[in-house]
Amino acid sequence: MKVQFVLIISFLIGLTSCTDTKNKNSKNTLSLYPKGEKINNSNFVGTAYLTGLIIADSINKNSVGNVTFELGARSNWHMHPSGQILLATGGVGYYQEKGSPKRILRKGDVVKCPANIPHWHGASAENEFVQIAITGREKGPTKWLKSVTDEEYATGNK
Amino acid sequence: MKVQFVLIISFLIGLTSCTDTKNKNSKNTLSLYPKGEKINNSNFVGTAYLTGLIIADSINKNSVGNVTFELGARSNWHMHPSGQILLATGGVGYYQEKGSPKRILRKGDVVKCPANIPHWHGASAENEFVQIAITGREKGPTKWLKSVTDEEYATGNK
Repeated sequence: MKVQFVLIISFLIGLTSCTDTKNKNSKNTLSLYPKGEKINNSNFVGTAYLTGLIIADSINKNSVGNVTFELGARSNWHMHPSGQILLATGGVGYYQEKGSPKRILRKGDVVKCPANIPHWHGASAENEFVQIAITGREKGPTKWLKSVTDEEYATGNK
Repeated sequence: MKVQFVLIISFLIGLTSCTDTKNKNSKNTLSLYPKGEKINNSNFVGTAYLTGLIIADSINKNSVGNVTFELGARSNWHMHPSGQILLATGGVGYYQEKGSPKRILRKGDVVKCPANIPHWHGASAENEFVQIAITGREKGPTKWLKSVTDEEYATGNK
């Protein structure tokens, strides 16, 4: 009985010795920012969320937003008259320009999307994906195109 | 003797039950990117590192870089003819525009720095600081000014 008591207490001491690490770890997520608002428009397939970080205005012509794609979610094909920069911050995502193979994006990857090049981005089929999008607004708004078909989405997946 | 043995084994079992968490946590750093190259010019005081992510060119007029300031390190006063956006990703830093109080920056904070407004940024005195800097290059390069004095750096610290 005494041995069992000592066993339980010692186990608990060992277990609680890593409490600080667990608390610290729980703050780390796939994103630097809150998920934000669910995107409710026809330019996306599946469930995606947006946190606006910077609104383009006369002071700065770039908008910056944090987008979270749930697995399988993706944007429609679209293009930006002033291009776009994507910073992948978590999960696994896809990025594809028209006529080019799909790129797999992971935390730390960077994409420079040229102006007026049709492309799409989104989560992989198995993992959600989080990105920071930096979009130039000098020459007008995003031009939205057709949705990404299931066949296009599935082609070249790893 | 038997009790002592059980005690040690049980402690070790408890301790190792959080090994996965520790391993996972060790991958998380203050930054999404490698520290990069040490900045060796007279526009910074203290030790700072830069990883270039996007070079501004004809495709996209913004440069994007990841800057790590060791504690106490800071930029000189400077201004950007097309403004700048800062995304704080780790640690504790300072940002100050000429004539305004210093801002404390932590992970998740965002700064929109207007064009041609003298400002500086850097680490706090007690913590390193990591930021993503998005800098418009349409209207020319950064204009560097005087260094931040120790008095300016110390004023308003918390």
